[in-house]
Amino acid sequence: MNSLVFDFPTSSPLGDEIRELMGADKGKVVLRYFPDGETYLRVESHVKNRDVIINTSLFHPNDMFLNLFFLADTLRLQGAKTIGLLAPYLAYMRQDKVFLPGEALTSVTFAKLLSQYFSYLITVEPHLHRYHSLAEIYSIPTIVVKAAPLITKWIRKNVTDPFLIGPDEESNQWVKEIAAEFPYIILKKIRHKDGRVEITWPEIGNLKNKVPVLVDDIISSGETMFQAVQYLKNHGMKAPFCIVIHPIFGRESYQKLQTMGVKAIVSCNSIPHPSNQIDLSPLLAREIIKFLRINA
Amino acid sequence: MNSLVFDFPTSSPLGDEIRELMGADKGKVVLRYFPDGETYLRVESHVKNRDVIINTSLFHPNDMFLNLFFLADTLRLQGAKTIGLLAPYLAYMRQDKVFLPGEALTSVTFAKLLSQYFSYLITVEPHLHRYHSLAEIYSIPTIVVKAAPLITKWIRKNVTDPFLIGPDEESNQWVKEIAAEFPYIILKKIRHKDGRVEITWPEIGNLKNKVPVLVDDIISSGETMFQAVQYLKNHGMKAPFCIVIHPIFGRESYQKLQTMGVKAIVSCNSIPHPSNQIDLSPLLAREIIKFLRINA
Repeated sequence: MNSLVFDFPTSSPLGDEIRELMGADKGKVVLRYFPDGETYLRVESHVKNRDVIINTSLFHPNDMFLNLFFLADTLRLQGAKTIGLLAPYLAYMRQDKVFLPGEALTSVTFAKLLSQYFSYLITVEPHLHRYHSLAEIYSIPTIVVKAAPLITKWIRKNVTDPFLIGPDEESNQWVKEIAAEFPYIILKKIRHKDGRVEITWPEIGNLKNKVPVLVDDIISSGETMFQAVQYLKNHGMKAPFCIVIHPIFGRESYQKLQTMGVKAIVSCNSIPHPSNQIDLSPLLAREIIKFLRINA
Repeated sequence: MNSLVFDFPTSSPLGDEIRELMGADKGKVVLRYFPDGETYLRVESHVKNRDVIINTSLFHPNDMFLNLFFLADTLRLQGAKTIGLLAPYLAYMRQDKVFLPGEALTSVTFAKLLSQYFSYLITVEPHLHRYHSLAEIYSIPTIVVKAAPLITKWIRKNVTDPFLIGPDEESNQWVKEIAAEFPYIILKKIRHKDGRVEITWPEIGNLKNKVPVLVDDIISSGETMFQAVQYLKNHGMKAPFCIVIHPIFGRESYQKLQTMGVKAIVSCNSIPHPSNQIDLSPLLAREIIKFLRINA
């Protein structure tokens, strides 16, 4: 039987695309609330012996987390063959260490919870910093999709004579991959205790007349990106492109970045956002199909 | 060392009262959010080898559920001796059966989750309908506090010549206990498929001149209570007292009930509400102390 892909809690263009590419059906679920805020949930699709995927946004995850478990638990009780979690943006990768005594190691609690309810997890470029792989905290199989090939393709098509800028050493991993065919530099970022960010630039030299393309995995507060854009401006460089994999854009940072004279702000569609221009669904669909075939 | 009682996520007068009665300290926790809605949490109290209790409101539980697990998991990692969940109102007791195929059995999923993170659970009059006890779904020790003695005491003090009314057969269990010293009747409630509620009354006879006291465990939509109050009015009875254990009061039902000419609306403080008049903390503190002594 065809696979079943639920968009949960809300419909998503990425979900539509993936269903079409996979030849999968759309899962149907009723979700409503009692006056005391409790969830009522009912799965309307036949799931028995089928490969089921929940396509969810873990952006602002707290509110819908319990619902995700209710759905997964119900699918299991109804006899689903596998229950995959498709989370193009994986939350709670930030706190990967206890910095101050008593801090919650949220990455671990979160990973353990998800590992209980799902057969496998598929995501795009998780924010790996101190962890080397998701297997350090997830006990289920994890499929990590790299956005680099799609970003490379986008730059090739849309930017003439680019040079890439990775705003910090953490970005090294994906900027290097994207930059296989373009020149690049990696900046050094120092985060002060008061939250202030300081960036050190290398010599730009002969890159000065190329088009700068800033690439980061996440724009959250936007502080790093603002500083980098300002630096380029101060040094008389061309207006930069800003490419981000996961467009979180907290605290009006998108609006602010737009006013700074950048050429364009471009993102992958892991989180629905007006800047979405790079579609992850072909890669995601391909990886899910491959995983299900190997594990059939 | 003294026990430690956290009020989570916010301070609560019930928590203050319980700490005083138990001679317990107040747990300190920092809770804030990143721009993408993720939680940052830090326990500031020393918890190693201490009996820790989290006093939480499970009213509108979805939003704060993940935070509750982050806190419990952190307390465990910090070496707390026991981690008790004090949930004066226990959520997700409603869906105790799959009525329509595909429905989430939320009571079970919820109970399993809580059972993983806590050493024991203490609550007040859970909404037991098809389950006979919490042990059917919770795998940790559960302490159920009965509100009946406190309600009896309140009525004795505040109502002259009362007779009690239980609005449906489910209320039988606690109305009978409260009514050991007062006359009472139990109504029959039929819930139609469209959500409409129909109530059948027995002969009231010689109770007609007494003061009616309606008692229910939960007022949620308020439909049952409205009908009962209206019936008493239509039959020329005295203005009734409405007593509820858990004042959920969804959909402006408190405001509506106030306009219906009732004598007073009174509740226990399991959920903070202007109608709170019956303090559960002495009974809760006593039961926690007893449990910890037995299990020391």
